[in-house]
Amino acid sequence: MLVTGAAAATLPAAALGTVVTGNPPPAKAAGATRKVTIYAEALPGNLFGYGLAPGQATVPGPVLEMYEGDTLEVTLVNTTNQRLSIHPHGVDYSVDSDGSPLHNSFNNPGETRTYVWRSREMFAAAGRRFMPGSAGYWHYHDHAMGTDHGTGGLIRGLYGALIVRRRGDILPDRQFTVVFNDLTINNRVAPNAPQFEANLGQRVEWIAIGHGSQFHTFHLHAHRWADNRTGMLEGPTDPSQVVDNKDLNPGSSFGFQVLAGEGVGPGAWMYHCHIQSHSDTGMVGIFLVRNADGSMPAGAQEAIDKHHGHTHVAAQQAAHGATQPQFVAPPEVRGPDPDHQHVHGD
Amino acid sequence: MLVTGAAAATLPAAALGTVVTGNPPPAKAAGATRKVTIYAEALPGNLFGYGLAPGQATVPGPVLEMYEGDTLEVTLVNTTNQRLSIHPHGVDYSVDSDGSPLHNSFNNPGETRTYVWRSREMFAAAGRRFMPGSAGYWHYHDHAMGTDHGTGGLIRGLYGALIVRRRGDILPDRQFTVVFNDLTINNRVAPNAPQFEANLGQRVEWIAIGHGSQFHTFHLHAHRWADNRTGMLEGPTDPSQVVDNKDLNPGSSFGFQVLAGEGVGPGAWMYHCHIQSHSDTGMVGIFLVRNADGSMPAGAQEAIDKHHGHTHVAAQQAAHGATQPQFVAPPEVRGPDPDHQHVHGD
Amino acid sequence: MLVTGAAAATLPAAALGTVVTGNPPPAKAAGATRKVTIYAEALPGNLFGYGLAPGQATVPGPVLEMYEGDTLEVTLVNTTNQRLSIHPHGVDYSVDSDGSPLHNSFNNPGETRTYVWRSREMFAAAGRRFMPGSAGYWHYHDHAMGTDHGTGGLIRGLYGALIVRRRGDILPDRQFTVVFNDLTINNRVAPNAPQFEANLGQRVEWIAIGHGSQFHTFHLHAHRWADNRTGMLEGPTDPSQVVDNKDLNPGSSFGFQVLAGEGVGPGAWMYHCHIQSHSDTGMVGIFLVRNADGSMPAGAQEAIDKHHGHTHVAAQQAAHGATQPQFVAPPEVRGPDPDHQHVHGD
Repeated sequence: MLVTGAAAATLPAAALGTVVTGNPPPAKAAGATRKVTIYAEALPGNLFGYGLAPGQATVPGPVLEMYEGDTLEVTLVNTTNQRLSIHPHGVDYSVDSDGSPLHNSFNNPGETRTYVWRSREMFAAAGRRFMPGSAGYWHYHDHAMGTDHGTGGLIRGLYGALIVRRRGDILPDRQFTVVFNDLTINNRVAPNAPQFEANLGQRVEWIAIGHGSQFHTFHLHAHRWADNRTGMLEGPTDPSQVVDNKDLNPGSSFGFQVLAGEGVGPGAWMYHCHIQSHSDTGMVGIFLVRNADGSMPAGAQEAIDKHHGHTHVAAQQAAHGATQPQFVAPPEVRGPDPDHQHVHGD
Repeated sequence: MLVTGAAAATLPAAALGTVVTGNPPPAKAAGATRKVTIYAEALPGNLFGYGLAPGQATVPGPVLEMYEGDTLEVTLVNTTNQRLSIHPHGVDYSVDSDGSPLHNSFNNPGETRTYVWRSREMFAAAGRRFMPGSAGYWHYHDHAMGTDHGTGGLIRGLYGALIVRRRGDILPDRQFTVVFNDLTINNRVAPNAPQFEANLGQRVEWIAIGHGSQFHTFHLHAHRWADNRTGMLEGPTDPSQVVDNKDLNPGSSFGFQVLAGEGVGPGAWMYHCHIQSHSDTGMVGIFLVRNADGSMPAGAQEAIDKHHGHTHVAAQQAAHGATQPQFVAPPEVRGPDPDHQHVHGD
Repeated sequence: MLVTGAAAATLPAAALGTVVTGNPPPAKAAGATRKVTIYAEALPGNLFGYGLAPGQATVPGPVLEMYEGDTLEVTLVNTTNQRLSIHPHGVDYSVDSDGSPLHNSFNNPGETRTYVWRSREMFAAAGRRFMPGSAGYWHYHDHAMGTDHGTGGLIRGLYGALIVRRRGDILPDRQFTVVFNDLTINNRVAPNAPQFEANLGQRVEWIAIGHGSQFHTFHLHAHRWADNRTGMLEGPTDPSQVVDNKDLNPGSSFGFQVLAGEGVGPGAWMYHCHIQSHSDTGMVGIFLVRNADGSMPAGAQEAIDKHHGHTHVAAQQAAHGATQPQFVAPPEVRGPDPDHQHVHGD
């Protein structure tokens, strides 16, 4: 989470990374209320982006994070000349925070508006069952530009990741947001699709989101995850299928954590849409797993060069932000960190 | 289930809503055998529907329900001049109840034919594993009109929901069947797509079904569910992802229960296909969560009017059955209730 | 697995079919290393296939199997005049075994190259969670013919199933590989789509794989499975949805076991893509469940004849290999068995 506030202090650091020891669920924590201001801006190339400060908009927008029980007050500043909004998946909101024209819940050009997103823990239904809480790898997006469903905003980059964690969830070292949006990845295509980087053994969190009007499957080479809420197994009786390829269709999202290069070593690993006509036309990028000390592994630069058609390395890095740091600190202690953002292209 | 019979009395009321207390599974209950007559009829607009009485056919057809172990004898009366059938998903049937021309299992025009659907509980496989029982949110559909796969019947409305429950499953207050069928919802498009209604806090069961030749994702605003058999969690170690958007492709189905407006309040909430080109062209409807006393919440009528392009409210209700009651009683005590059916449109 | 070797003897037979008794996971077994030689060959009809001996290539290729912890050394002999490779899903490999041109990991025409695939068991992450092991119903495929993503090899048949089992997993009596590849099943269409056979009550393992550039859903009549790793339930609290129709999109795979005809009896059951325009144009085949003694059930031959448009039976069998035996022995004791392979069509 890129937002801080006084309320954050009410969450003890000890609550992070601890073990949840089973049924019944932990007593509902007093949720924190945090405020964040997001700036919707026009970007070069007829794109639009969300950012945490003026002039900082990116495609995708910043990763927003909450713990179950928290409330996020999102003040959206519309610096553009278009009608737009911010509509979240997975969290609770009243109709006036729906982000849809149906409820007049949008920002006119130049307008500032606050949307309130609440979350909650699971709660007993009946018998042994529980109504689910808000935890998940979700996303947010425009729901007002172009059409009443935000089709114009989505196709131009108004989307981002929203994570709601359960207390006890494992926090990652790095985070990547991958949006399969029509025939692009984060509104780019190879060789300018995003290049993500981590050092061998780092815990990397992927948040995958689908948008647009095409179907896709997300495939990551040499890494795999459980097809469930966390990507990890709860133990030998967790029935989840383990996958390395998963449907990523419009409006859907999922997330998982892998240890970069675990069992396979460093290298310039591919991730791509597995629809053959999509990968062949540019829905492919590089997950560069560096050596543990951050140095370039043998052969990786050659692979990257090949991916870029042997263009100059510095030009590549400028083009896709190859060297952007993506450190993730716990929500409670993390300050606004421009390096954490996913930089936008050209 | 909309069917009653003497056999139903063999299921004690105490078997409903009770808690299953873990492994091993409960002894197999003596399943009930129930009979239902379904009338396949031509409807205005070149549609066809299934109904529980002559002149009562609807699109989708009535929700049929069973408990694991039950048998349903479906006598299909074909009142039309077309070859057609009824083919179920999820349950057991012999080849002569397959509903396919491959097995000469269909009704010629004017013909009456009985199809037998059986169900069962999970049973031990080996080690700690069990072969699954029949419980699920399933569906039934024509498999004989137009082509040997019923493509002509499906495109004209011959489909409906079939629920097989486990003993102990929680029963809902209301039920909605949503079929994404090519570029329609229940063979309608906005503003005439189905409007579903519940009062704040009611337990609402959605059964979502995909048909046709297009891919879809089902999205519900301000509500979410666990992506598993029931939509609820079994507790903190249930690994299921919680979602508010899910693939809904031809032949697939899923179901879940939500508490209407829980945590978000009443309102005219949207549900829609999240494929942008599909929502923009009419695959969107309203889930009207009324106040707890059934009154219209502030702003909801305005939103509905906007959805309808400000047409007259009474006309809308006539068009999409906005006021249809959809109360669900336990299968054991429920009589044939025309109000329970999903009425068909203009 | 169709491969034997000295190392296989290190796996005691008692390790098969036993019960895993819960958390913590069993100590990591000493994995076996096995070697297999695979021949990539041109086939009639502009197809290509993988086989375990010269002249034995099939579409799909042979089912390869491992236990978690095992290593498979795949020596690929390219007997063709095309660049091609073998790329696995689900297992661990270094960049030089990636099978992609990006890493120069492919076989030139006439070249022989060894690819090393490793696997592992789940291991503790933090708290109660585990990083997943390799167990799953995976697949392998070309990643170098035609395009850098193997689009040319995939469309011509260079694919097959790869299973990684956990110790204690139940072994099947028969195995079927079903690949929905563009608008074909295993590069065939009805009436020449594969016909699979088992006797009533046999435990049949289906491995379903998606390839190409189209979306699909796999539907099997009269049988169903849990949508999880094994297709079976771990007990009453396993939340998995039970399905008989599942998305099968490019790059994805899943597997499950059913008891042939259990609860429904023998017969010529259909399996097909449930996209109506796909089933209508030939994505449909027969799962022939014979009587327990192997004899033809009443009516089944008539259904098969109808499926084939009443062509001569012997011709059908020649066309789709209707009588191929598909017995599966445990990996440890199974020798190279040509009957186990999926024969290729005319």
